[in-house]
Amino acid sequence: MANNIVKGVENMHVKLYNDERIDQLYSHDVSIIQSSNVFSFSLDAVLLADFARVSGQRIKRVVDLCAGNGAVGLFLSDRTHAAITMVEIQSRLADMASRSVELNGLQDRIDVINDDLKNTPQYIPKDSVDVVTCNPPYFLNYDTSEKNPNRYLAIARHELTTTLDEVAQTAADLLKMNAKLYMVYRPDRLSDLLMSLRSHRLEPKQMKLIRPRVNEDANMVLVEAIKDGKPNGLKVLPDLITHAGQQYSDEVKRILYGN
Amino acid sequence: MANNIVKGVENMHVKLYNDERIDQLYSHDVSIIQSSNVFSFSLDAVLLADFARVSGQRIKRVVDLCAGNGAVGLFLSDRTHAAITMVEIQSRLADMASRSVELNGLQDRIDVINDDLKNTPQYIPKDSVDVVTCNPPYFLNYDTSEKNPNRYLAIARHELTTTLDEVAQTAADLLKMNAKLYMVYRPDRLSDLLMSLRSHRLEPKQMKLIRPRVNEDANMVLVEAIKDGKPNGLKVLPDLITHAGQQYSDEVKRILYGN
Repeated sequence: MANNIVKGVENMHVKLYNDERIDQLYSHDVSIIQSSNVFSFSLDAVLLADFARVSGQRIKRVVDLCAGNGAVGLFLSDRTHAAITMVEIQSRLADMASRSVELNGLQDRIDVINDDLKNTPQYIPKDSVDVVTCNPPYFLNYDTSEKNPNRYLAIARHELTTTLDEVAQTAADLLKMNAKLYMVYRPDRLSDLLMSLRSHRLEPKQMKLIRPRVNEDANMVLVEAIKDGKPNGLKVLPDLITHAGQQYSDEVKRILYGN
Repeated sequence: MANNIVKGVENMHVKLYNDERIDQLYSHDVSIIQSSNVFSFSLDAVLLADFARVSGQRIKRVVDLCAGNGAVGLFLSDRTHAAITMVEIQSRLADMASRSVELNGLQDRIDVINDDLKNTPQYIPKDSVDVVTCNPPYFLNYDTSEKNPNRYLAIARHELTTTLDEVAQTAADLLKMNAKLYMVYRPDRLSDLLMSLRSHRLEPKQMKLIRPRVNEDANMVLVEAIKDGKPNGLKVLPDLITHAGQQYSDEVKRILYGN
């Protein structure tokens, strides 16, 4: 993530590998272990965490699928009292997430599962989760598609170890009836996204498009879906514009830096 | 349609019923027979016509389904040299459209079919059409849904005589391979729309959301789909904002009044 939105913090007696650093998002009271060789969170994760509604007494259990280095779950932790479970298939990333949890002293509230997300119901009962969040790989795994030679990044970006349908199936398995899934995705595959959610009992109810500038095409989309929600009734919320000139927009600055 | 965007014109020896008037959109060189008791075009039709790409030598045949009083086809006529066919199930509306065609002296280029749209392939060969446009009824026909007591308006708004799937099937039947469908719809049913198009070989490729003001939810959506297009690659274009304060926005004024 660009240096201007995070501040480095001192190593607080948690093991760091050579290529790792500790970053902190100004607007969140959490520190996150990052590595440009392995995984660093991007704006997608920040916006997904901001979009998800996790506050309130009724939200007791949150699961973040495709957790990467745990950024989304850590960002959510200061806005919810719920227990948070992060699920990440890559052991190196799951280990980074675990150490970040420790770094923030959140072991009592956050746990990390290092497994394929489709096995999550072996750890967490079905129909028991109040909110699922997910920032999944966006790109289809065509044989011909160019992938990052870095395996960590390739798995985070391409559907090498999971698919949209597996994410939707797992979210639907975990969620209580009428509970909500929040996802960030690419508009390019919006039809895939809406169809996959619907075919897994997850009815899209809110959508927010993210674009760099008012007059540019959207480059991200945030979706809220409700398990067993009635068909239709989708609200397309006001856009989120990320930039003003070469800078971040005021709205993104508020999300990144607080106030 | 609001009086401020149309100008009344003199009756040019075409039969008018008592409740009818002739309106002209400032930006278009066409006159349209309207009736507030039966059917008057609305902003949806104007924006759909503006969105559809119908110019160019390759566009030889355009079909407008759910044509109503013919507004969309008439608006398109000054931007294309193609033959235009309007299809409308309600005989009174089809008759209004026919008289408007006559009023504008466009009988050589525009014809009106008064039939159920699903019978269109009995009049026009399959796989022969370059562009299909459609401003269909938006509302599902639940037994419980409140419908306009005026039957003309109820049919135009609710799926009483056709459905989204029938529209998609008919468009797919008529269009050449790689030819385009343009539709205006409600965001509320965006998932229905994208799924229905896809399941009828019409891949959504461009989408434009229309909202009253920047900070309000979208109230219309324009979609371009390509017959037998490759999956995904959807572009979500910049929004169209219809209002500035209590007035139409500059963009809508340009569409309504011309430069």
